[in-house]
Amino acid sequence: MGSVLDRVESALEHALPRPDVAPAGLHDGMRYAVLGGGKRVRPLLTFAAGDIAGALPERLELAACAVECIHAYSLVHDDMPCMDDDVLRRGKPTVHVEFDEATALLVGDALQSLAFQMLVGAPVADDAATQVEMVRILAAASGSRGMAGGQAIDLANVGVMSISLPELEMMHIHKTGALIRAAVALGARCAGGLSPADLERLDSYAKCVGLAFQVVDDILDAEGTTASLGKTAGKDAAQNKPTYVTLMGADRAKEFAAQLRAEAHAAIAPFGTRGLRLGQLADFIVLRKF
Amino acid sequence: MGSVLDRVESALEHALPRPDVAPAGLHDGMRYAVLGGGKRVRPLLTFAAGDIAGALPERLELAACAVECIHAYSLVHDDMPCMDDDVLRRGKPTVHVEFDEATALLVGDALQSLAFQMLVGAPVADDAATQVEMVRILAAASGSRGMAGGQAIDLANVGVMSISLPELEMMHIHKTGALIRAAVALGARCAGGLSPADLERLDSYAKCVGLAFQVVDDILDAEGTTASLGKTAGKDAAQNKPTYVTLMGADRAKEFAAQLRAEAHAAIAPFGTRGLRLGQLADFIVLRKF
Repeated sequence: MGSVLDRVESALEHALPRPDVAPAGLHDGMRYAVLGGGKRVRPLLTFAAGDIAGALPERLELAACAVECIHAYSLVHDDMPCMDDDVLRRGKPTVHVEFDEATALLVGDALQSLAFQMLVGAPVADDAATQVEMVRILAAASGSRGMAGGQAIDLANVGVMSISLPELEMMHIHKTGALIRAAVALGARCAGGLSPADLERLDSYAKCVGLAFQVVDDILDAEGTTASLGKTAGKDAAQNKPTYVTLMGADRAKEFAAQLRAEAHAAIAPFGTRGLRLGQLADFIVLRKF
Repeated sequence: MGSVLDRVESALEHALPRPDVAPAGLHDGMRYAVLGGGKRVRPLLTFAAGDIAGALPERLELAACAVECIHAYSLVHDDMPCMDDDVLRRGKPTVHVEFDEATALLVGDALQSLAFQMLVGAPVADDAATQVEMVRILAAASGSRGMAGGQAIDLANVGVMSISLPELEMMHIHKTGALIRAAVALGARCAGGLSPADLERLDSYAKCVGLAFQVVDDILDAEGTTASLGKTAGKDAAQNKPTYVTLMGADRAKEFAAQLRAEAHAAIAPFGTRGLRLGQLADFIVLRKF
């Protein structure tokens, strides 16, 4: 995982506009938001799925960076005062605190554009038709029926402790799940080797780890510390947000995460040893402490 | 122009998520931001450029809607309290006033995603490689070296009355010009009929009308009324923003707009009568009163 992480960091560093290029303030903010922090779970998933497809690392870098830019933009906007109003992210002041709100708004906007630029600036797939499909996947995962829609549902739920588990799941399928599925789907399309059935298996895997990611996030928010997480702990309770922990209790939430981890492994079992990295990532997502 | 406008309105109406589809609040806001207002200058330019290429209206609709969604998202974010803090747009309360700030933020974010979805949801060009190029054009025009970058430069200039004309022009080339050029470039690529020289001519035209658009905006902001504009008049002066009027005076700004109009006409003269609509749009952009 280490060498892939290094590769992703250096690809992001290279793909982001240089801080000495105008408008410097905006480019500074974009680099601040993306570089030097984060677990890079989505890029790692893109690389692991690409491994199975036999994709070239140069292509996977672009796809992974695109997904990470969408993720980073969503964090910048999500932390703003009109949303979660948070001051700490990845152990650093959030963008609107370090810069200002207007810069944070534009940093997020420009990172979204940059994500799409990354997918079309060079060949990321065997043919242009697949590249078009990859843009379609990322745009749908980011939009109102994907991540942005999940954020909207999340906001509407603040203070509403009475939502049902299926409603909570629906929110997370959009808010976190859509982009995690996209990370896997894009990696898998960077080379043409996979059958529709293989793509289906990878998508089942991605659905499980996407949901597991959120369940574990909820557990960590309830049980972790701000220092260990690098972001404000206990935020969900403070904001009266419904979570897997509030709806199921911590023990059942942990069982649920374990079950999702097992389902993720089962989905990729047919790939045998080729699925090793994906399996390790499922383990990491469920067992992580931050 | 009337029938194209009707076509664009109905395409936007159709392409935006229905308000009864969840998340309803977000979809409501997206429709509010885009529908029922606006001069639709960019979609009209897309159609007029597509006319020259002999493009199918179904394709032009998608390209035009994509550009208009980017434009609409930029207005929603630009009006927010941390940016221009404006309460009136297209004769209606701005999105953050009608809904709330969080919704405005997400509406803008989701509209940007939707714009890219529109470019890849159906064939908008003769081949997938051109479609990839169209995504590249729109993403670059929207990002930190395009529209979002222009906004950042604009913000940095508030209260700075001493900037030079070239600096002002650089800001507008990004803030307004980039997306207007993209509107023309996308329309021209919806069919494969144009030579590189033709595309170059259209781009020269687009640069002139893009700049003229802003010069005239500055004149109208200084001389128009809130009622005639449908947005707050006199805003530039109130915010101490440098404009063509403050830097050149109103008379020279008007001469400059007339000159750009003439240059736009000259650029498309080789197209003869096929360029009729583009010529009419250049006239409209310079002679409009709102």
